[in-house]
Amino acid sequence: MTTVDPALGGCPAPAAEREKILLGHGSGGQLSAELLRDVVLPGLGGAGEGVPEDGAVVPVGGVDLVVSTDAFVVSPLFFPGGDIGALAVHGTVNDLAMMGAAPVALAVAYIIEEGFAVADLRRVTASVGTAAAAAGVPVVTGDTKVVGRGAADGLFVTTTGIGRRLPGARVSAAYARPGDVVLLSGPIGAHGTTILSARESLGFEAEIASDTRPLHRLVATMVAGAERDIHVMRDPTRGGVASALNEIAAASRVGIEIDEAALPVPAPVAAACELLGLDPLHVANEGCLLAVVAADRAVAVLAAMRSAPDGRHAVRLGEVVDAHPGRVVMNTLMGGRRVVDMLVGEQLPRIC
Amino acid sequence: MTTVDPALGGCPAPAAEREKILLGHGSGGQLSAELLRDVVLPGLGGAGEGVPEDGAVVPVGGVDLVVSTDAFVVSPLFFPGGDIGALAVHGTVNDLAMMGAAPVALAVAYIIEEGFAVADLRRVTASVGTAAAAAGVPVVTGDTKVVGRGAADGLFVTTTGIGRRLPGARVSAAYARPGDVVLLSGPIGAHGTTILSARESLGFEAEIASDTRPLHRLVATMVAGAERDIHVMRDPTRGGVASALNEIAAASRVGIEIDEAALPVPAPVAAACELLGLDPLHVANEGCLLAVVAADRAVAVLAAMRSAPDGRHAVRLGEVVDAHPGRVVMNTLMGGRRVVDMLVGEQLPRIC
Repeated sequence: MTTVDPALGGCPAPAAEREKILLGHGSGGQLSAELLRDVVLPGLGGAGEGVPEDGAVVPVGGVDLVVSTDAFVVSPLFFPGGDIGALAVHGTVNDLAMMGAAPVALAVAYIIEEGFAVADLRRVTASVGTAAAAAGVPVVTGDTKVVGRGAADGLFVTTTGIGRRLPGARVSAAYARPGDVVLLSGPIGAHGTTILSARESLGFEAEIASDTRPLHRLVATMVAGAERDIHVMRDPTRGGVASALNEIAAASRVGIEIDEAALPVPAPVAAACELLGLDPLHVANEGCLLAVVAADRAVAVLAAMRSAPDGRHAVRLGEVVDAHPGRVVMNTLMGGRRVVDMLVGEQLPRIC
Repeated sequence: MTTVDPALGGCPAPAAEREKILLGHGSGGQLSAELLRDVVLPGLGGAGEGVPEDGAVVPVGGVDLVVSTDAFVVSPLFFPGGDIGALAVHGTVNDLAMMGAAPVALAVAYIIEEGFAVADLRRVTASVGTAAAAAGVPVVTGDTKVVGRGAADGLFVTTTGIGRRLPGARVSAAYARPGDVVLLSGPIGAHGTTILSARESLGFEAEIASDTRPLHRLVATMVAGAERDIHVMRDPTRGGVASALNEIAAASRVGIEIDEAALPVPAPVAAACELLGLDPLHVANEGCLLAVVAADRAVAVLAAMRSAPDGRHAVRLGEVVDAHPGRVVMNTLMGGRRVVDMLVGEQLPRIC
């Protein structure tokens, strides 16, 4: 279909060619998925085609490497519970972990706006260094670019992680099977509400803090002894738990049912979400993970999660079903059922 | 030392803490080196300490991986001879090649400004795909973030490359030895002058085009049969040939002498530089490399370079000397000698 744009002097132009990028294209929700499917992947010649994962497996000389990259554009740069530096390290370590990999090395690239305070760069860099050391993974290389005033917003950090797949770990968003159990490692909603509260000075930031933390040790604990029984791992960052579960349901062509009663939403997060009209299921997290596990190993894996410092509040969230493939349904506290949709558009820009 | 800033209400603040990032901190020259040395590396706990290289060697399971990351912020996004997509692929492939590695996989992260044309994103992505396919290296994973209008300038692309070190290749900026010969694979100055001309519509862009191209095949040709005799490889991008040679001289604690008569500066590049007051030795290149080679193998390596499509205009540029360690000196066409300094500050921002 073509339309005529008067601004182009009456030249017909395909509608698609006049499309503009929206904030929602970066949300991690449905628009992001469409941009990836319709624009990015075709141009790359089908690279990463099919199931959207947090990284890629690259076999090199008999070793299964895992590679993951993420651009961090969070605003504000410093927030309760963390900053862009810690977030960049944790986010990339976690993307490797969700692929069943232990982190081996990180690369960090800065894009800095002219006029940015050197003291803030020092502070972010120290945070990168501290987070990397705490996660036990070295920053081996990097890059620094500077753009003119107004050409960036302070600082953007792109982190790339190289990992090595844990022996036996074979996880994919496509591996969920009916009967599997859905586990969640801890409370949800803290990161997104903290960022929004800090940005808008809403006052919640006195009570809540980002949950940003590395999850690779929790994953190692889970995988040890249960290798082939953990089918999917996913950290519900942009787009929240709802988008992550929908991605799993779509990739595995299964239904997922979750129980609202099991959903761990801290009271201050619930209060912030109610005030702001946000669904906690759509709010970004940076320190919890979803796992889809074979039913007969679910109790053991849940116990292993609860034994780890980063999973002690783990819960059984729901299960994988034959019914309604591609859909996520929640049994509500009121005894009803509702469809849990992917985030459409942008709930809150620049969350990570 | 502390100074009193009236704007801070008379509070004394260390001068360093009020410093701002300048465009020159991203130039690849002396300010970049200082920022790296004084701010970035200390915060990362000494990662990559010492010699500045184009990437890092990461041994994993008996394999010598090489990792390199680069943020690309070139403006304009499209220019004669290439665009930000091709540049991002070539730049990263070349950084791996300069470490003596063959590329294995690429990761690509976009930061996109809200309102950016989807058609342009499609065009850049197709260029990434085409350049990667031509270089024979797959794009295995990526990320897409969107920031609000005015928070970025169109599109930034960060590329990370994973490579595998070529058997026997052991190159470092610190390995130049007196007596070694300095080779240059082709003409200089085209990329930087093309970007400037395109940005300012100076008209030179009708005659010149960026030299952006992947150099890993040239490197493979050079390394085959001369493994331990190639001591240094470096692509003279930001900061140009002058900065690359100064880095080598400093890291190896040697002097370098080059001959102006041997310097391949195409006539349109020379004309543009003269008009703009640029030194071609400081202008960025994206498709040539410098190699420091054992004297007794220089003729053979030069012949190998000339046999490759990307090195057919290779020249012998000069030699490594005992005298004036850390300094680069040029024997001029007029029969004199002048010191070739590193680029200080910023000659031309957002060149790559």
